[in-house]
Amino acid sequence: MSVPGKERLARAALTRLTEPGDEAVGRWLRKLGAARLVEALTGRAQPPPGAGPDRIEGCRRRAAACDPAGDLAAVARLGGRFLCPGDLEWPRQLDDLGDAVPIGLWVRGDADLRLWALRSVAVVGARACTDYGSRMAALLGAGLAERGWVVVSGAAFGVDGAAHRGALAAGGATVAVLASGVDVPYPRGHAELIQRIAEQGLVVAELPPGGHPTRSRFVLRNRVIAALTRGTVVVEAEYRSGSLVTARQAQRLGRSTMGVPGPVTSGLSAGVHELLRGEAVLVSDADEVIELVGSIGDLAPAREGPVVARDLLEATAARVLDALPGSGASTWDRLARETGLSRDQVLGRLYELRALGFVERTGERWQLIGGTGGAEGAGQRAGARRGGP
Amino acid sequence: MSVPGKERLARAALTRLTEPGDEAVGRWLRKLGAARLVEALTGRAQPPPGAGPDRIEGCRRRAAACDPAGDLAAVARLGGRFLCPGDLEWPRQLDDLGDAVPIGLWVRGDADLRLWALRSVAVVGARACTDYGSRMAALLGAGLAERGWVVVSGAAFGVDGAAHRGALAAGGATVAVLASGVDVPYPRGHAELIQRIAEQGLVVAELPPGGHPTRSRFVLRNRVIAALTRGTVVVEAEYRSGSLVTARQAQRLGRSTMGVPGPVTSGLSAGVHELLRGEAVLVSDADEVIELVGSIGDLAPAREGPVVARDLLEATAARVLDALPGSGASTWDRLARETGLSRDQVLGRLYELRALGFVERTGERWQLIGGTGGAEGAGQRAGARRGGP
Repeated sequence: MSVPGKERLARAALTRLTEPGDEAVGRWLRKLGAARLVEALTGRAQPPPGAGPDRIEGCRRRAAACDPAGDLAAVARLGGRFLCPGDLEWPRQLDDLGDAVPIGLWVRGDADLRLWALRSVAVVGARACTDYGSRMAALLGAGLAERGWVVVSGAAFGVDGAAHRGALAAGGATVAVLASGVDVPYPRGHAELIQRIAEQGLVVAELPPGGHPTRSRFVLRNRVIAALTRGTVVVEAEYRSGSLVTARQAQRLGRSTMGVPGPVTSGLSAGVHELLRGEAVLVSDADEVIELVGSIGDLAPAREGPVVARDLLEATAARVLDALPGSGASTWDRLARETGLSRDQVLGRLYELRALGFVERTGERWQLIGGTGGAEGAGQRAGARRGGP
Repeated sequence: MSVPGKERLARAALTRLTEPGDEAVGRWLRKLGAARLVEALTGRAQPPPGAGPDRIEGCRRRAAACDPAGDLAAVARLGGRFLCPGDLEWPRQLDDLGDAVPIGLWVRGDADLRLWALRSVAVVGARACTDYGSRMAALLGAGLAERGWVVVSGAAFGVDGAAHRGALAAGGATVAVLASGVDVPYPRGHAELIQRIAEQGLVVAELPPGGHPTRSRFVLRNRVIAALTRGTVVVEAEYRSGSLVTARQAQRLGRSTMGVPGPVTSGLSAGVHELLRGEAVLVSDADEVIELVGSIGDLAPAREGPVVARDLLEATAARVLDALPGSGASTWDRLARETGLSRDQVLGRLYELRALGFVERTGERWQLIGGTGGAEGAGQRAGARRGGP
């Protein structure tokens, strides 16, 4: 299942012509389709209903710099791809955003976004967090990773960065959703971290390559974090902070919202406590987070046992699965040696296999769920893991 | 409305013959009445149904040292009294305890327990609390007092003591519910504090004078704190601590239960967080506490306007009310000067008048609610404020 090239080109163009999360664009897209909408917005066809001359003029100005094929090539050079709704790799829970669903997602990294997102939790919070906040974020990031969950955040300073680092350091999977293009590391001080996430994890953006963040783009980025994950944990947040916006969006989308409490004398916990006085649930550690998000059954397969046939697995995933012992466990390092795949590739496959119910992680140990024999031959397997260009 | 002397004497005797919170005793008391139960328990009449010989033997041993008239005289010498169900001053919400309702309460202090308890909140927590815990307890104690609420606790080291001290220091009303007799300061290190509470506030016990605390008496004391108040705030508590017992009892009795969060890295907040993951509500300050307990309408009169006629006020309460200006506010000190009453007496009356809806406190300022004129003459007023012996 893959989106035709023309549709993909048009959607890539739309990510440059319009702003993320624009519900008017979402409605037009639904009615006209991507290719006709590009024509309508750039003056090559009748403007969409309700689109004023200013908007058309703005789109035409942007159209001058619009080279979707070039953008697709640029992201491919980074080892990335441009995902559209309808692609096999498209995380379908994003559709919960209605007309604010992303037009497409620019993605860097080896893993399958849809599979990873099935078992993912957002860990967000203050940029200027306290030592307590960054320690808790790192602990949660590591704890979630060690239990086979993917940690999603916004790559910002403070809580976001600590959560990503905690997951990375624990040999875990993490997704950075940027408010800029996937090739524009923001904040600059996190350039190395974002590069590392692109290698071991995934970097995701609505903006096309070269896109720069703005205030409203940060806010709108948060809805993607909320929709992508099964729950959002806020670690430290002041009143009226962006993290609370993410948490409330998660709430509206029916996701779990959670907060890590702190001293009430700390202004950086005040926003979290406000959430906790509402619908959000207090969590103290990764186990409590998983207890909560693990019970939401509609977004992910059941925890026990595979949900797809082994024969449908993509080739490298099958190779990793075959390398796991029938009984007992293996480690990331050993699996990399035994499969001949890169460590980052192995990690990508392991968390995909976790989402599909084949394997589980406990601390450093990866093992088959329910002893589904790892001794079988690999056989022939279909490779349609992802529907990229 | 007052309990007859014979009934009071018998109940006083029962507080020495039996243990607090014994539901079998509660059932017999309901069936036989106090005087007949004393006879039945001490072998002067047929034993109550189900009372084994061990119990009767125990009661007869205790009966040797039982001198209820002497106990009543002893508590009177301390400026105290022995309250029974049916007395005007009996806090009727204690009846929610069913058969575990106290047989009576030994009380030291000038104020009316029933009126004070109508607008009271329990602040409890760990004995070995952190600096954060004791600071929060003191802040809550002071904050509640400054908003016209009475602070109830158990006079223990740590959170309890800090809550009492916070209320006292803010010129507020506080009630210590002891697991010993009202003349046995426990812990010894809090002898001065408990003495001060007996002067400015109230000291309450189920045990007769001279009674010493035991482990089970502490646990059973907690049910009185829970039942007496409109809500219980736990400031710091480890897993499975006595404060959690109080909080859960409060919950079962339909009272508000609240918790002050802290760092999840602190074992002394773990018990509170456990509560907060259940039914308890997170609170950060006195305003949030009052927001919650203030909305429980069945235990206390509405907040605005008096609920009894001025003419029914006891004489000193009427004098304090008359000393309040028709518009504007006065202070504790000024009211003491103007009424010629002691400071402690004035404080007692002010919180009684607060419970009755005549006055309100904001910070240091006391004023009439809704400008009910303070310029009227005092006139003749009934003095049946309390139904002691």
